[in-house]
Amino acid sequence: MALKSFIEISPDSHFPMENLPYGVFKPDESSAPRPGVAIGDYVLDLQVITSAGLFNGPILTNSDCFLQPNLNKFLEMGRPAWKEARATIQKLLSSTEPALRDNASLKQKALLPAVKVQMLLPMAIGDYTDFFSSMHHAKNCGLMFRGPENAINPNWFHLPIAYHGRASSIVVSGTDIIRPKGQGHPSGNSPYFGPSRKLDFELEMAAVVGPGNKLGESVDVNEAAEHIFGLVLMNDWSARDIQAWEYVPLGPFLGKSFGTTISPWIVTLDALEPFGCDAPLQNPRPLPYLAEKISKNYDISLEVQIIPAGEEASYVVTRSNFNHLYWTVTQQLAHHTINGCNLRPGDLLGTGTISGPEPESYGCLLELTWNGQKTVSLGGATRKFLEDGDEVIFTGCCKGNGYNVGFGTCSGKIVPSIP
Amino acid sequence: MALKSFIEISPDSHFPMENLPYGVFKPDESSAPRPGVAIGDYVLDLQVITSAGLFNGPILTNSDCFLQPNLNKFLEMGRPAWKEARATIQKLLSSTEPALRDNASLKQKALLPAVKVQMLLPMAIGDYTDFFSSMHHAKNCGLMFRGPENAINPNWFHLPIAYHGRASSIVVSGTDIIRPKGQGHPSGNSPYFGPSRKLDFELEMAAVVGPGNKLGESVDVNEAAEHIFGLVLMNDWSARDIQAWEYVPLGPFLGKSFGTTISPWIVTLDALEPFGCDAPLQNPRPLPYLAEKISKNYDISLEVQIIPAGEEASYVVTRSNFNHLYWTVTQQLAHHTINGCNLRPGDLLGTGTISGPEPESYGCLLELTWNGQKTVSLGGATRKFLEDGDEVIFTGCCKGNGYNVGFGTCSGKIVPSIP
Repeated sequence: MALKSFIEISPDSHFPMENLPYGVFKPDESSAPRPGVAIGDYVLDLQVITSAGLFNGPILTNSDCFLQPNLNKFLEMGRPAWKEARATIQKLLSSTEPALRDNASLKQKALLPAVKVQMLLPMAIGDYTDFFSSMHHAKNCGLMFRGPENAINPNWFHLPIAYHGRASSIVVSGTDIIRPKGQGHPSGNSPYFGPSRKLDFELEMAAVVGPGNKLGESVDVNEAAEHIFGLVLMNDWSARDIQAWEYVPLGPFLGKSFGTTISPWIVTLDALEPFGCDAPLQNPRPLPYLAEKISKNYDISLEVQIIPAGEEASYVVTRSNFNHLYWTVTQQLAHHTINGCNLRPGDLLGTGTISGPEPESYGCLLELTWNGQKTVSLGGATRKFLEDGDEVIFTGCCKGNGYNVGFGTCSGKIVPSIP
Repeated sequence: MALKSFIEISPDSHFPMENLPYGVFKPDESSAPRPGVAIGDYVLDLQVITSAGLFNGPILTNSDCFLQPNLNKFLEMGRPAWKEARATIQKLLSSTEPALRDNASLKQKALLPAVKVQMLLPMAIGDYTDFFSSMHHAKNCGLMFRGPENAINPNWFHLPIAYHGRASSIVVSGTDIIRPKGQGHPSGNSPYFGPSRKLDFELEMAAVVGPGNKLGESVDVNEAAEHIFGLVLMNDWSARDIQAWEYVPLGPFLGKSFGTTISPWIVTLDALEPFGCDAPLQNPRPLPYLAEKISKNYDISLEVQIIPAGEEASYVVTRSNFNHLYWTVTQQLAHHTINGCNLRPGDLLGTGTISGPEPESYGCLLELTWNGQKTVSLGGATRKFLEDGDEVIFTGCCKGNGYNVGFGTCSGKIVPSIP
């Protein structure tokens, strides 16, 4: 049964009392950025709540963590602070608590219509890492580029493969994506040059790191969840022609680094807890440092829609689920630190494209069109890859009993290359 | 002929009046970090010089760029500010200028013996990229792992190959490097796990980015030098067994991200100007966006010494030169932005291992011992790869007429894995 707030929340809202995701926003163009929590169609201004002295638990009472322009300080404080904040906010918003409900002027200052605020990146991202943890995605890419004998590399089943991504070009949902220029894979001897001809989305989610670890030390896989604040939706835009030409032997570079979009709201692991489910059985059995006592995924339905250039309607092109991941986010984090690499609060760990087993659940156009060998239908239009003016919209949602815990959307529109 | 300072500077110093490299230091454990310039055996405290009102040129007169804990703000200001600062400092330190020379109390505060201060990372590094720009290194790696038919991939001659590196684990010279643990390439079916058995150095240099570019815009290759403040020495420590197992298909990850060491002093392009030399002729001719009007390298002699565990003497294991790079740093920077990827002040662009054509000039143990098939001699000891307790010291130096423009050293000692 859903928790009751004094705010009216539609039953299909992504942001009921059970969710309370964190973001950073500006009330208007001239205000300073500050942390907020989504509730129904509103954003709760945590700076205002802090200034009103309503964070009165033992950890947060004198903290300035919500007076910062990003969430990094709060992320660093760890789960005890996160749990206290969640309990305080849940109580403040409940239908039985008068402190905010009955204070009209505070309510007006603290609860802002979500449509009126400007969402920003929720944290300063020191480093961004992208994994490759869906077996279906790995297999499809392998089939396309290496053939059936060797579709998945032998290392893939022993460790969560990943690469370092580009942090500077991560943008918040709603930011236009400029079509990248670059060298494309040649059919003959010489590469072509120009705007990418194979621009793609990648349906991903990403973990936001809370407390980090010291350089040289590793995080135990069974304690890794304590280092993860929550998850966001992520679109790892990819220029397949640039990527295919450049990636041997050092991996993806300019085919990815022109832009990565994340959703503005971080849904906490605490809110996702009821949607935990068993991760796939791993065979071969992972090495001890990756063997978890409880190996958990989350049942998060994911959907990709495209609004084709010049149209208003959107068309669903894929439906997938976070639970298709072979390597869990806790295994990813433990693996990342096994060599002593230090994570810092606000670091972002992408899952890699989340493809399911069926063709309708493939997480990118590369797989959906089998590298342009077929098309996807968008009403009357068709696409092999993205065209200028196309808008790509991800949604993610967990279905509870009478409520959702959702991620809202993660969207971006393709605009032409700068000449 | 050397410029004359009122400070006595030994003719073999790396830091005469012609150099004036920038770093960040703490005068003692309890002081705040601040920018400084190396001069002979001293460090000039730029915070003190600023507070004394001695930066009196039009750009720097009211700037707080040297009152920051890192150089990022100064880096962002660009070449006009850099030129003004250089001129001001060169004048202040000259034998004919009384302002500092004849002010005993200011001199005592502003000029600190270099051996007494603690050097720190000179800038906050948002993103770190590592290129692969020495043809000899690319060829040797290809010969070892792919054989002679296909030693250098076809893409290598068309673009400066690179990968995103890990920014969090970049440390300043003198920081111990903890041997990473991880999965090593299996001889049979299953990987082994434990402390790396093939720990290596990589002799590199790196460009420090000044003013950045906007997301979506590209930097013209002929203007790329305006975005580069200077160069540092860099040791891209590598665990070859971890790297060999993990790197297909997404490139190096944990084999690199346990630590990267840079020298504390950034030598500016202005100081390197007299040591410019022609870059190698490129064939095939690069695409227009990489074709430079003037394609320039620098004549910087590089040397690697190892002090083996338990000994005091150091042994030279390689001698190379920055001028062996096939792709110039300006081409690297232009390529990095051709897709619209935004660079930010303080970003680091590594050159990749700088190997020369002769075996004595190879830039890492992987090449020097041909992946452990032979050994290098260190006096009585021999090495295939690095052992715990080994210290690796890079030096870099340009030889002028009666003076050097040097980089000092970039060193690190291997300590055992944390159990």
